[in-house]
Amino acid sequence: MKKAVILLSGGLDSTTCMAVAKEQGYELYPISFNYHQRHSIELEGAKKVADFYKVKKHLIIETNMEQIGGSALTDSHIQVPDGEIVHEDNDIPVTYVPARNLTFLSYALGYAEVIGADHIFIGVNAVDYSGYPDCRPEFIQKFQALADYATKAGAADGRHIRIETPLQDLTKKEIVQLASRLGAPLQFTHSCYKGGTKACGVCDSCKLRLKGFAEAGVKDPVEYETMSN
Amino acid sequence: MKKAVILLSGGLDSTTCMAVAKEQGYELYPISFNYHQRHSIELEGAKKVADFYKVKKHLIIETNMEQIGGSALTDSHIQVPDGEIVHEDNDIPVTYVPARNLTFLSYALGYAEVIGADHIFIGVNAVDYSGYPDCRPEFIQKFQALADYATKAGAADGRHIRIETPLQDLTKKEIVQLASRLGAPLQFTHSCYKGGTKACGVCDSCKLRLKGFAEAGVKDPVEYETMSN
Repeated sequence: MKKAVILLSGGLDSTTCMAVAKEQGYELYPISFNYHQRHSIELEGAKKVADFYKVKKHLIIETNMEQIGGSALTDSHIQVPDGEIVHEDNDIPVTYVPARNLTFLSYALGYAEVIGADHIFIGVNAVDYSGYPDCRPEFIQKFQALADYATKAGAADGRHIRIETPLQDLTKKEIVQLASRLGAPLQFTHSCYKGGTKACGVCDSCKLRLKGFAEAGVKDPVEYETMSN
Repeated sequence: MKKAVILLSGGLDSTTCMAVAKEQGYELYPISFNYHQRHSIELEGAKKVADFYKVKKHLIIETNMEQIGGSALTDSHIQVPDGEIVHEDNDIPVTYVPARNLTFLSYALGYAEVIGADHIFIGVNAVDYSGYPDCRPEFIQKFQALADYATKAGAADGRHIRIETPLQDLTKKEIVQLASRLGAPLQFTHSCYKGGTKACGVCDSCKLRLKGFAEAGVKDPVEYETMSN
């Protein structure tokens, strides 16, 4: 059975990626990160999603990225703003975490190399998104170009580890529809940046999520403090 | 004063990079990694080197890379072999750590972005080296091509964070000579993979180091169990 490493934050997009990879017949190897993020509660969601799919192993990488800071998600002194979904080109919100997707993909690449997985799924999306540079197709293409040079798998063993981005061109509405069709366990997911037990309903991430569910005509199964959409 | 992030393992090459960056007038921001490596004793060396250069901050990233394994340096079940310095093209030794330099550079890139450093020094070398794919110039070039797409600094702020590899084309002999000329504190460095208080003298890393000192006609200030060269 072919293996895939899935970057699993515990949110809507990565959980949908789990469902897509499952449907495509992969054996799932989710990898999650406790990077001392404000919303580390998302890891509880990730564990439940991993359990739901009865994975052999759920790898949780521990790292003190809050020592780097520079983001509202890793520095408690920077507030998570109430979101505005539309961002200008050069207006990347303070919830951007410096080089996070690059770092996470790097771990995933090493892990894929070790377990013999030739596919890595990541739920990046550049349609209904927060404007983060490391969610764009150009970033993924450049990472793909690098991958074969960064590993023994690519440099000597003739393996080609592919980065799969099944959500890249979907709207949030389409992601919710896809997740629903595939029976993804959205009740376990956590998208809110603020990190409370209930989602805040007003941060960037909550607003994008609520917009997707509303447009898809699907009821979001998680609880909110406020419903801004 | 212009800032530089220096990837500092605590070994000969990274300590020489510290000395080079210092001479070039940079304010030094070393970053080290406790990745649960067999030779985590190298971090003691890194701390002494950072102290020697009186740095403002020495960032130590903690991460459980042993959960990924796949290397003699992160999996205690895989033995560190006695080294053979000459490797064939496709013969990458078991001390290779999957995607390590990629992961470390990714952290360094995020850190450089946050502190406003436009230079990252890494002591990679592809002359007297162990054949690791992620020490070759092609790897660094591909990473450089990716860097601007992975960060807000590159994508929106017009900053270009450069990867500096001053040792790329030097022999180990030339590295020892350079370090000596610049007064790098080689007495604090630790290169041995086996992780004992004294260097083993027979692993790949010790052999490369001893060869460099011998050819440079410089006495290695650290203690060895065995002197194989």
